[in-house]
Amino acid sequence: MPIAHVYLIEGRDEEKKERLIAEVTDAIHRAVDAPIDSVRVLIIEVPKEHFGIAGQSAKKRGR
Amino acid sequence: MPIAHVYLIEGRDEEKKERLIAEVTDAIHRAVDAPIDSVRVLIIEVPKEHFGIAGQSAKKRGR
Amino acid sequence: MPIAHVYLIEGRDEEKKERLIAEVTDAIHRAVDAPIDSVRVLIIEVPKEHFGIAGQSAKKRGR
Amino acid sequence: MPIAHVYLIEGRDEEKKERLIAEVTDAIHRAVDAPIDSVRVLIIEVPKEHFGIAGQSAKKRGR
Amino acid sequence: MPIAHVYLIEGRDEEKKERLIAEVTDAIHRAVDAPIDSVRVLIIEVPKEHFGIAGQSAKKRGR
Amino acid sequence: MPIAHVYLIEGRDEEKKERLIAEVTDAIHRAVDAPIDSVRVLIIEVPKEHFGIAGQSAKKRGR
Repeated sequence: MPIAHVYLIEGRDEEKKERLIAEVTDAIHRAVDAPIDSVRVLIIEVPKEHFGIAGQSAKKRGR
Repeated sequence: MPIAHVYLIEGRDEEKKERLIAEVTDAIHRAVDAPIDSVRVLIIEVPKEHFGIAGQSAKKRGR
Repeated sequence: MPIAHVYLIEGRDEEKKERLIAEVTDAIHRAVDAPIDSVRVLIIEVPKEHFGIAGQSAKKRGR
Repeated sequence: MPIAHVYLIEGRDEEKKERLIAEVTDAIHRAVDAPIDSVRVLIIEVPKEHFGIAGQSAKKRGR
Repeated sequence: MPIAHVYLIEGRDEEKKERLIAEVTDAIHRAVDAPIDSVRVLIIEVPKEHFGIAGQSAKKRGR
Repeated sequence: MPIAHVYLIEGRDEEKKERLIAEVTDAIHRAVDAPIDSVRVLIIEVPKEHFGIAGQSAKKRGR
């Protein structure tokens, strides 16, 4: 019953996020033998100005 | 001082979410004898396309 | 498919934690009409010295 | 490689949040000797109606 | 700079968990074009008696 | 009512973690004008073999 939360800077299109769910689910399934049906993956999008790297937001760093 | 984070697919109306906060707070209070005043409940809403079940988003699954 | 994480200072016995899972699941079910089967509740226990309240650990505060 | 998630009721302006990232990063660096570059700080904003205190949302409590 | 938290019932051996980190990192890299170096994956192990499914702990359910 | 979760590789002594709680609480207080009393800081320690950086655990990377 693994549950993954993936924190991402916002801005990816829906297709990439759908692929992210599929790939991370599959990765967990392969690595720890959890049934695909039991896996949950939540994407938590974080705006650039809320994602701090080395003391500055990604926005300020120009990402 | 219990803190609960509840991850929900978005779409519930405000009344249900207010009730969710009340009910979960009360449940924690009853189960572990924590004073009502000390309990925090955060609702984290997740869009359908960010909530993956069995490798597909809830959106793709038609929820 | 609601998922709740409950952060608790460690020290409750197993019976109380089993009850916590049951009560919080039921509270979510009642409040937002989620099927009982779809609810996940994770208890994350935090040692007293890792739970900070008003700038001091619960251990230092004598809890 | 410390990672901090800071859950805040929404409504602070961008300047305060930029300062929050800088100050929390610095605090972690000073306290546990982690290099500034290795620290990540994520701000997760929670609407008033999703932040429950003592069984009621911050919105209902008039904050 | 994606960060994944994977919540797992405890009990997997170290080799599987090392593989989990490698596979989930790679999955994120492939899906959203994030550089491998920028990905963080945290495994949060949860004891059977703290992982609730449908109102009962995994321990009580006999897992 | 800010709540911070700080994920750390395990191994710091208690004094440093007490200082971490004090410093992070103060940083939040200063940056967003939250009363000291309202701040919660939780330290979530993660074993070296559960903290993945660039696809490898901190243990494997020799930290």
